Amino acid sequence: MGGPGSPLVPGVAATTGPVRIVGAGLLGASVGLGLRRSGVEVTLADPSPTAVALARDVGAGRPAADGDAGPALVVVAAPPDVTAGVVAAELVAHPSAVVTDVASVKGQVLATLRTVGADLTRYVGSHPMAGRERTGPAAALPDLFAGRPWVIVDHGDQGNAPRTDAVLAVRNLAVDLGAVPVTLDAATHDQAVAIVSHLPQLVASLVAARLRDAPPEALELAGQGLRDVTRIAASDPQLWTAILAANAAAVRTGLSALRDDLDVVLDALGRVPSPAGGGAPEGVLSALARTLAAGNDGVARVPGKHGGQRRRYAQVSVLVPDTPGSLAALLTQVGETGVNLEDLAIEHAAGRPVGIADVSVLPEAAARLETELTARGWTVVR
Amino acid sequence: MGGPGSPLVPGVAATTGPVRIVGAGLLGASVGLGLRRSGVEVTLADPSPTAVALARDVGAGRPAADGDAGPALVVVAAPPDVTAGVVAAELVAHPSAVVTDVASVKGQVLATLRTVGADLTRYVGSHPMAGRERTGPAAALPDLFAGRPWVIVDHGDQGNAPRTDAVLAVRNLAVDLGAVPVTLDAATHDQAVAIVSHLPQLVASLVAARLRDAPPEALELAGQGLRDVTRIAASDPQLWTAILAANAAAVRTGLSALRDDLDVVLDALGRVPSPAGGGAPEGVLSALARTLAAGNDGVARVPGKHGGQRRRYAQVSVLVPDTPGSLAALLTQVGETGVNLEDLAIEHAAGRPVGIADVSVLPEAAARLETELTARGWTVVR
Repeated sequence: MGGPGSPLVPGVAATTGPVRIVGAGLLGASVGLGLRRSGVEVTLADPSPTAVALARDVGAGRPAADGDAGPALVVVAAPPDVTAGVVAAELVAHPSAVVTDVASVKGQVLATLRTVGADLTRYVGSHPMAGRERTGPAAALPDLFAGRPWVIVDHGDQGNAPRTDAVLAVRNLAVDLGAVPVTLDAATHDQAVAIVSHLPQLVASLVAARLRDAPPEALELAGQGLRDVTRIAASDPQLWTAILAANAAAVRTGLSALRDDLDVVLDALGRVPSPAGGGAPEGVLSALARTLAAGNDGVARVPGKHGGQRRRYAQVSVLVPDTPGSLAALLTQVGETGVNLEDLAIEHAAGRPVGIADVSVLPEAAARLETELTARGWTVVR
Repeated sequence: MGGPGSPLVPGVAATTGPVRIVGAGLLGASVGLGLRRSGVEVTLADPSPTAVALARDVGAGRPAADGDAGPALVVVAAPPDVTAGVVAAELVAHPSAVVTDVASVKGQVLATLRTVGADLTRYVGSHPMAGRERTGPAAALPDLFAGRPWVIVDHGDQGNAPRTDAVLAVRNLAVDLGAVPVTLDAATHDQAVAIVSHLPQLVASLVAARLRDAPPEALELAGQGLRDVTRIAASDPQLWTAILAANAAAVRTGLSALRDDLDVVLDALGRVPSPAGGGAPEGVLSALARTLAAGNDGVARVPGKHGGQRRRYAQVSVLVPDTPGSLAALLTQVGETGVNLEDLAIEHAAGRPVGIADVSVLPEAAARLETELTARGWTVVR
C-alpha cells in the first residue's frame, strides 16, 4: 500500500497575491505555508524578527520589506487583544488591499474598528476553526485548515458593509487552504464559540485545577474519562486569557447558566442523607438524574466525523499488546477484511503493557469483523 | 503478522471456587468470564432471570441453584444503592464465605454494614477501576480488568477488621483477573474517586447540557476539544445518580471548591470592559490567567500510559484520507520503521473526507519517523 495523495490540489489557487501576513505564529505561518504550496506570493511581518525568520525557514513566505508591491490581501494573525489595532493600521497602510483577521472572537474587533472609523468596505473578519496544542511558526502546517470550518463574518448592513469582492477574497483564501467556509454574523459566532470552545476550555481548566492538591494515590486511579475531560487544560494561559476577555459577555452568559445547573446539583448533594440515614428526600435523586440526562441529550447533538449528525457506529473492542507494530497489525487486518474503520479510540491500561482498541465500524459490518479478527487470533469481545 | 497472545496466563488462578457472583451485569459477568477462563467454578445470581441467562450464554458461569455447594468467595456486583443490603444478606446466607463487592463508593457500604452488625471479619470491600460505556452482561469482557487498578479497602481497626485470608482472597481475585491491586482506606478511596471520576463526570454533563439549546450552527463549529470534554456525558444517568448519591459528601466538597474557582472567573468576566471601552481593571486578566495556569499544573499531574508520570512524547502529525485501509497503511509503515507507537489520536475533519493522525512516539524517534513517512509519500508536518 502506498502513501496517500493530498486532499487538496497543489498549484491551484483562486487567491492572487501578493498576500501580506501580519503575525507569523502558528496560524499566520500555516496560512503562508498553504498559499506558498500553490505558488502565491506571501510576505511576512511580525514584531518578533525571530518569528519572521522561523516562518520563512519553514517555507511560509519571505520577510516583508520596504518597497514591497502593495498587497492584494492582508491576513492579520495577531493575538486577539491587538488584532483590531493591527487591522486598522493595515487598512490605512494598504489603501487598496482587502484585510481579514483570524482572531477567535469577532464582535470586539468589529466594534473597535467601527469606533475608530476604519474603512469597513475592505475588511472582512474571519475565524478558521483550527489549532494545535503547540504554538509558534515551527508548529505550522500547510494542511492545518484542511476540512475545518472557516467562519466568514457577515457584517450585516450596520455601518458600511464590505464589498462583495472583499468577501469573495476571504472565501477564496479559506477554500484555497482546504477549509469549509461558514457564514455567520459576529454575535452568533461569538455566542457559538463561547459554548463549543470557550466554556469547555474553562471547565477543563477548573476540573484540572482540582488535581493540583490531590494526593498521588488519587491520581493513580485516573482513567480515560479524566484524561479526556482535562486534555485541553494544557492550553496556553496567555492566549486563552486574551480570548476569554475578548468574548467575556458571551462566555459569562454560558458560564452563569452552567453555574445555575451546578448549584442545583450542589443543593441536591447537600440533601442526600448520610450513610444508613434513610432514603433521600423527594426530588434529590431526580435533580441529579435530570442533570445527567440533560448531558446525554446535549452530547448526542455533537456532530461526529465529517460533520453531520453523530452516527451510531458499532464498536468492536480488541485487546492490543504494547509491542511495536501491534496496533498497525490490527488495523492492517481490519483493512484486509474490507471493513472501513470509522473511528478508533485507544484505552490505555495503567501499570500493565496492554491496551484496548475500540474500533468503530458501520453496524452492519461489526459481526463479520469480529469473526474475522477472532479467526486471526485477536481477543475480541462481544 | 499474527495476532497477539493474551497478557494473562489462562488456566492459572489462585482463586479457588466455587465463586458466587451476585449481580450479572457488566462487572459481575466480566468477573465470571475471567474466572471461567481459568476453570474456576462460578455461579450467577441476579434479580433478573434474563441477566443470568445472558451472562451464562456469554460464558460467565452457571445459574445458581438450590443445593449448590457453599461458595468460598461471594462477589457482589449489584448497583451501589443496594450493595450494602446484598452484602449483609450474603454474609448471613453463606457463613463460611469471604464476601466482597465492587461498588464504586466504599464508605457508605462499610458504614451501613457496621450499622446492621454484619460479620466484618469476612467482608472486604473492593473497587475495580474499569468500566465501559455499554452496560449489561452482553458487554462483559474477560479482560475488562486487565491492567486496571483494583482498589482493596483497608478497613482499619475500627470495628472488627477482616481476617488476613479474606483480604488475600480478594487480592487473588484481582490478580487472577489481571488487575493491579491498590490498598486504600474507604474515605481516601471515596475522596479520590470524587476528584478523578465523579467530578469529571458531573462537569462533562454540565457542559454537554449547555449544548441542548445551542443553535445548529454552533454545533457545526465543534472541534475535538468539545468532543473530548463531553464524551463521558453519554453515561447512564440511573447508575450515576446512585454513585453520586452514595458519595455525596466527597463530591460536594470537590464541586464546591470548583464553584469557588468558577465564581472568581465569573466575577472577572463581569469586570472586563465592553469592546473599545478601555483596558481591563487591575486583577481581572490575572484572575483568568491564574485559573488557566492552575489547570496547566493540574493536568500535568495526570499519569500517562502505563501509570507513572505523564511522559512528553513527540507528536508526528500525518494527513490520512478517509479511504478503507488508510490508517492501517500508515500504522503498518510506522511499524516497519521499527518505531513504537506510544499513543494515537485522530482529529476528524468536518465536511471533508480527511483526518489528521497524531502519532506519539519517543522524542528521539520522531525525526527519523518523519523522514521515513515523508519518503513513503505521506504528508507529514514538522
